[in-house]
Amino acid sequence: MLGPQVWSSVRQGLSRGLSRNVRGWASGEGKKVDISGIYPPVTTPFTATAEVDYGKLEENLHKLGTLPFRGFVVQGSNGEFPFLTSSERLEVVSCVRQAMPKDRLLLAGSGCESTQATVEMTVSMAQVGADAAMVVTPCYYRGRMSSAALIHHYTKVADLSPIPVVLYSVPANTGLDLPVDAVVMLSQHPNIVGMKDSGGDVTRIGLIVHKTRKQDFQVLAGSAGFLMASYALGAVGGVCALANVLGAQVCQLERLCLTGQWEDAQKLQHRLIEPNMAVTRRFGIPGLKKTMDWFGYYGGPCRAPLQELSPAEEEALRMDFTSNGWL
Amino acid sequence: MLGPQVWSSVRQGLSRGLSRNVRGWASGEGKKVDISGIYPPVTTPFTATAEVDYGKLEENLHKLGTLPFRGFVVQGSNGEFPFLTSSERLEVVSCVRQAMPKDRLLLAGSGCESTQATVEMTVSMAQVGADAAMVVTPCYYRGRMSSAALIHHYTKVADLSPIPVVLYSVPANTGLDLPVDAVVMLSQHPNIVGMKDSGGDVTRIGLIVHKTRKQDFQVLAGSAGFLMASYALGAVGGVCALANVLGAQVCQLERLCLTGQWEDAQKLQHRLIEPNMAVTRRFGIPGLKKTMDWFGYYGGPCRAPLQELSPAEEEALRMDFTSNGWL
Amino acid sequence: MLGPQVWSSVRQGLSRGLSRNVRGWASGEGKKVDISGIYPPVTTPFTATAEVDYGKLEENLHKLGTLPFRGFVVQGSNGEFPFLTSSERLEVVSCVRQAMPKDRLLLAGSGCESTQATVEMTVSMAQVGADAAMVVTPCYYRGRMSSAALIHHYTKVADLSPIPVVLYSVPANTGLDLPVDAVVMLSQHPNIVGMKDSGGDVTRIGLIVHKTRKQDFQVLAGSAGFLMASYALGAVGGVCALANVLGAQVCQLERLCLTGQWEDAQKLQHRLIEPNMAVTRRFGIPGLKKTMDWFGYYGGPCRAPLQELSPAEEEALRMDFTSNGWL
Amino acid sequence: MLGPQVWSSVRQGLSRGLSRNVRGWASGEGKKVDISGIYPPVTTPFTATAEVDYGKLEENLHKLGTLPFRGFVVQGSNGEFPFLTSSERLEVVSCVRQAMPKDRLLLAGSGCESTQATVEMTVSMAQVGADAAMVVTPCYYRGRMSSAALIHHYTKVADLSPIPVVLYSVPANTGLDLPVDAVVMLSQHPNIVGMKDSGGDVTRIGLIVHKTRKQDFQVLAGSAGFLMASYALGAVGGVCALANVLGAQVCQLERLCLTGQWEDAQKLQHRLIEPNMAVTRRFGIPGLKKTMDWFGYYGGPCRAPLQELSPAEEEALRMDFTSNGWL
Repeated sequence: MLGPQVWSSVRQGLSRGLSRNVRGWASGEGKKVDISGIYPPVTTPFTATAEVDYGKLEENLHKLGTLPFRGFVVQGSNGEFPFLTSSERLEVVSCVRQAMPKDRLLLAGSGCESTQATVEMTVSMAQVGADAAMVVTPCYYRGRMSSAALIHHYTKVADLSPIPVVLYSVPANTGLDLPVDAVVMLSQHPNIVGMKDSGGDVTRIGLIVHKTRKQDFQVLAGSAGFLMASYALGAVGGVCALANVLGAQVCQLERLCLTGQWEDAQKLQHRLIEPNMAVTRRFGIPGLKKTMDWFGYYGGPCRAPLQELSPAEEEALRMDFTSNGWL
Repeated sequence: MLGPQVWSSVRQGLSRGLSRNVRGWASGEGKKVDISGIYPPVTTPFTATAEVDYGKLEENLHKLGTLPFRGFVVQGSNGEFPFLTSSERLEVVSCVRQAMPKDRLLLAGSGCESTQATVEMTVSMAQVGADAAMVVTPCYYRGRMSSAALIHHYTKVADLSPIPVVLYSVPANTGLDLPVDAVVMLSQHPNIVGMKDSGGDVTRIGLIVHKTRKQDFQVLAGSAGFLMASYALGAVGGVCALANVLGAQVCQLERLCLTGQWEDAQKLQHRLIEPNMAVTRRFGIPGLKKTMDWFGYYGGPCRAPLQELSPAEEEALRMDFTSNGWL
Repeated sequence: MLGPQVWSSVRQGLSRGLSRNVRGWASGEGKKVDISGIYPPVTTPFTATAEVDYGKLEENLHKLGTLPFRGFVVQGSNGEFPFLTSSERLEVVSCVRQAMPKDRLLLAGSGCESTQATVEMTVSMAQVGADAAMVVTPCYYRGRMSSAALIHHYTKVADLSPIPVVLYSVPANTGLDLPVDAVVMLSQHPNIVGMKDSGGDVTRIGLIVHKTRKQDFQVLAGSAGFLMASYALGAVGGVCALANVLGAQVCQLERLCLTGQWEDAQKLQHRLIEPNMAVTRRFGIPGLKKTMDWFGYYGGPCRAPLQELSPAEEEALRMDFTSNGWL
Repeated sequence: MLGPQVWSSVRQGLSRGLSRNVRGWASGEGKKVDISGIYPPVTTPFTATAEVDYGKLEENLHKLGTLPFRGFVVQGSNGEFPFLTSSERLEVVSCVRQAMPKDRLLLAGSGCESTQATVEMTVSMAQVGADAAMVVTPCYYRGRMSSAALIHHYTKVADLSPIPVVLYSVPANTGLDLPVDAVVMLSQHPNIVGMKDSGGDVTRIGLIVHKTRKQDFQVLAGSAGFLMASYALGAVGGVCALANVLGAQVCQLERLCLTGQWEDAQKLQHRLIEPNMAVTRRFGIPGLKKTMDWFGYYGGPCRAPLQELSPAEEEALRMDFTSNGWL
């Protein structure tokens, strides 16, 4: 299935992708682009009437752009992408592209349920300026999403994508773990450069790094809660909701890990676990946006059916930051 | 939240919905429309190049129309709705409206992830001829889909829908059970007429019937496997994938239950369990479509990433029908 | 594995079991004993110092004995059997044997984690007067409890048991569903007469009845919440925690189902769902025992680590009975 | 509940426990004993007729004793403790005590379902020579095992235990995670010294270390798959099934972590993940024992209902070791 003729069509796409090198990522012959580093998954700001607020989006990006992030993930789960129309998805990416510093990477979520729609969205994302596409597993028919089906899906997308593809597994939202055997198979595709794994099972992350060690395949931790452990196991970065509010601290944790200062890293990691849980699993995007308001960014409302936090939830959220010395 | 002013706006919508009575459903003052009966959830036929095949859709409807169904569900989970564009979703419903007998009900799936998109799709579904909207629970952010969030979502949709709304809970796809307390609350809304429950927990179905007994709220079993048990507990019909291939038999089971012939009903029900599991949980839509091909309908391929059955799966599928005397 | 030599050793055991016929169950050549009917799973009363209170146990049995139960289950999950020593388990069964009417059946829970211990407990249960053994699935190593392992376990127990064996699947406690294929295989064993299924999936119950229809295999519903639905699908009785407090009503539901009065059955079933959930899933044995106190039986405390209900829980428990007209 | 009078009774027990210091663990005033290091959870050897083979147990211990383990866990999940009688449980511990080097720690699993039985087993374990008791969460009534119930259970056990208590959470077997809030509360008990966490969620391990940092509470990773990550997050050791066969390698991984050689640690950790999964989640104790046979220890059969590996499973097991260079 993954024969030479497949890869040749891919290489065309890749060569187009490589032309992006001007934006700052080097890629020699056969070497996959380097996506290592920390990325905040950017939220989508809405006005009181639930319109996308592009002005606030730009403001947030200007502030976030001062931090040493490798780049930005747009339309990840925290971007409320399932609530956006196709044109909104593209316009948001386009807006971020303009507002963000030129030397950073833009990873755009382009996953849809059907393979065809995902291919089209991926191509469009490339056209509006994405450097790579982050493709979430389709999940509505999860009972039929076998390794074979998922390999077929991602191969097709990667074959036809003009930009590199990053696999994205987020079982809390999809009810589906991209199987290790599928990841290992897909890592051999020249246009699949890595994976964002938000499942939190670092044994699995270690196994993926180990079994793809000959493939130049890069794993990003999907949450700040297990970022240090992921570095320990061989991940090269993270896409962390928490980086939207404690971006400097998440980048500092990266640096401590990369420079082998494990004791200090541990202390910092410990203080980030509860705040991270609060803005992810515990209170979700409403919690993240509320916290952004506290930290000088624009959070604002979510689109329905996501609800605002109750006063009691807001109090608990605040406590998770104060008790760790961040507020 | 569900005060009189809310209901008044709903009543306007309802009165518009009531104008549909010409199509054959009677509804007195304050009485909700009767949705009792059996419905096949219509599949969406595709050509070899994955285009919607409207000709085949019409042919299927003409054949299905000869059976004593109460109506048709279009864009349920078996309709591959997550793989269709918005305009395809509407065009398919429009096509079914033309092809189906005039005296049947058309229940159109109009659920989207955001409340706003669901409202818009529901209104559009009404415009292309749907008699009622079947609204699946939003699920991507299931961790935040509390009873309060879901009540808010469905109330908004029902408030603004020109046609009656049917709740739709299908945990195998969504990873989410619409909570009983939310159902009970929502049953009081004049424009919410019932629920399709595909979870298979008949204790839950019995409890919902019991707790909504003053609300003229109608429960449809979401699968043929627990259809008889659901009738025993007070359900008034079913939306059954199996009815796409064994439609006469599912309607016969309905009749046996309604006329109190429980012994014969049990025998028939027993013989339908394995075939039903085969075309739902076990082999999904690819299994259902393959079986449609065997039974004189057009099944055809699914859109990717859904894969065709392997020969071994196909053999097992066939065995589930032959061992029960249906092939 | 299930060859003639296996069954011959079983037949010896069976013939010993058949001598119990004096207690009132007829069994012709090759016909399995009839276990149809309603059984309360008797609770184990404890004193304030957590000793087994045999006097209270007798009193409860005397009261329960006036109701038209088919018999009593002792050391089911509601009997707190994991908290009893081996000798307490036997003494409790012995006590019930003496206190209960002579014409009823005593089904004794004899399951242990190891096959050998289960065999020994089963033999001992027979010696202290059990008419049949109800054997829960071993579960601590559930990851290795394949169909093959469970078939081996139950075959060994049934081979060596002097009394008939009833399979017992209770996933809420064990995290394990006895697979349908294992049940079908085991139904062919002459000393395995039926199954108690507490999982609540009546499609599964229907399938088991269907696939064992040539084996004289009897299925008992494991809870009052799905009793009527189970009768509709072909079950022949139930082991119902709720029968410890609403025994007359559960027996009445049985009679309505057996005489085909489905409408009245449905009304009664509806009113039993919430009380049943309250004394099982929702508040567990502490809830059941508290309710027994209200209904004139001795409930008393549980052994630790089971805790008494909080006042709020007790209030909610009471509401589940009052709102359905039982208190 | 955890008032001074409670702790005073505990201190008596503790002071008795402290008399064990002769065996090699120092404990100053108010300081909890140090349990850091690597422990194999010893398997229980059985003869062909399923008797405990104490001779083989001694032989295994003599071999294991040559490795730099901190001690041995006896009657952990890998010891098949649910298949042993109470007297066998004690005799196995007694045998290990005699056979193992005097300067190591013996952690004995003493968990039972009831609090009272657990207390008695813990006291008995102390009498036969255990240095500390490792107490698994009760689980049969997991629906009622709230934080409050578990806090009550462990407090009672720790109050009455003459030896220090180690909490033990192993959700793969128990279907239950000891909640973080309960762990934090229990960490304040002077006779509760730490926890073995086999769940594999290192974010949780980090959070527990962080929130008990003032309590001198020690966390042991429950499996070799996430050992390095656990060290990174602040765990002080591990109880690793894999150490029964690759003991030197697991101890080397410990040393690499403790000395900050994270790169080498990562490489070694990577090569241990698949073998570890093979002898735990994938093939369970039958897999572990088969591997012991390969590595010069006595594995032998398990007690029923655990079954031997099939030839295909054995082949896959071997592959997990050979592909990582261990066979």
